[in-house]
Amino acid sequence: MKVIADLCVVPLGVGVSVSEYVTACERVLTAAGLKTALHAYGTNIEGEWDEVFAAIKECHHVLHEMGAPRITSSLRFGTRTDREQSMEDKVTSVKRRLADEASAGKTDPS
Amino acid sequence: MKVIADLCVVPLGVGVSVSEYVTACERVLTAAGLKTALHAYGTNIEGEWDEVFAAIKECHHVLHEMGAPRITSSLRFGTRTDREQSMEDKVTSVKRRLADEASAGKTDPS
Amino acid sequence: MKVIADLCVVPLGVGVSVSEYVTACERVLTAAGLKTALHAYGTNIEGEWDEVFAAIKECHHVLHEMGAPRITSSLRFGTRTDREQSMEDKVTSVKRRLADEASAGKTDPS
Amino acid sequence: MKVIADLCVVPLGVGVSVSEYVTACERVLTAAGLKTALHAYGTNIEGEWDEVFAAIKECHHVLHEMGAPRITSSLRFGTRTDREQSMEDKVTSVKRRLADEASAGKTDPS
Repeated sequence: MKVIADLCVVPLGVGVSVSEYVTACERVLTAAGLKTALHAYGTNIEGEWDEVFAAIKECHHVLHEMGAPRITSSLRFGTRTDREQSMEDKVTSVKRRLADEASAGKTDPS
Repeated sequence: MKVIADLCVVPLGVGVSVSEYVTACERVLTAAGLKTALHAYGTNIEGEWDEVFAAIKECHHVLHEMGAPRITSSLRFGTRTDREQSMEDKVTSVKRRLADEASAGKTDPS
Repeated sequence: MKVIADLCVVPLGVGVSVSEYVTACERVLTAAGLKTALHAYGTNIEGEWDEVFAAIKECHHVLHEMGAPRITSSLRFGTRTDREQSMEDKVTSVKRRLADEASAGKTDPS
Repeated sequence: MKVIADLCVVPLGVGVSVSEYVTACERVLTAAGLKTALHAYGTNIEGEWDEVFAAIKECHHVLHEMGAPRITSSLRFGTRTDREQSMEDKVTSVKRRLADEASAGKTDPS
């Protein structure tokens, strides 16, 4: 079962800046061979269910080893059986609609 | 590694009412022997990491088998190494503070 | 527009224990006259959209005033136009299904 | 109060494909003059608190008007008082760390 997920890890008890921990998490996901895309409030992850969730577990392990006594994460994750869909497909289908509308707006005299 | 999680599963393509699917998910979590607490926007789950996430995977499997072509879930999950903490501990510590303040407010003349 | 929400506030930069801040947030929501239900990973909130989101904003304000330099929250929120639904309705419809199945399981000889 | 948020709207009761609704939501956010960045599982939004949340409310309104009888959204949102931080800052600080480590790895003989 393939999954597209979006992970946001928040270490507690390590002060106000958490980018060191987010970076470590990125390394874990990349080392796991997963397709990822970092954004301003988390990271998109695409892969087989077991590989994605093993990597997420490893993120928590590594952050605790780095000294974070507590971690709270939020995750969105989606599976579908009707068709294959990649992270890029999801973004592209929205961007194409936006472009089509912009284009229609320019040429439509109404 | 123990985890406390909060799961909200949302099946798509099965109409507007999803309680049948949420119920199936509850059965999966209970059958897995996990401690759970249903609330109005999800379910608290407490247990060992691997057992919790195996049950969450089983939820997606079962909901797809029931006919949901697409599922999008949101999950919060927390781990800590500084001390043991149960779901009840988390609620109790807040409720005790609220009670203490209410009590202080009643007796404090200032 | 009525909304049912589920809020989890996480103050950063204030150490590993956050129950003092969660308690303050509970007081804000209650003072706003909103229906709430605390659980182990957040708080269910029911009310009119503007009142719910004004209270959530006040939570962030109050937590910053208490000394939290950074807050990251996660929120689920749902609206529907097909029918009225309360927080209790959502829980009850799942619990009734679970009870019906348990009852059917006991009496059904198949 | 400035906020950085990450919104994922999920219309229910409109079938399995939701990109038409996500696109409408993008238009609402852009029309509101907010800085946004679409990704595979939501949209980053940056702006003043009241403007961001007014636009999110408008998203729910518009999606209901388009025919979605039910919408469930998930949102992450963060505020901080210690310093200004943009969406780009958050991504850049992680990417710079990753680049520094990659660079150190290449030149460090140890």
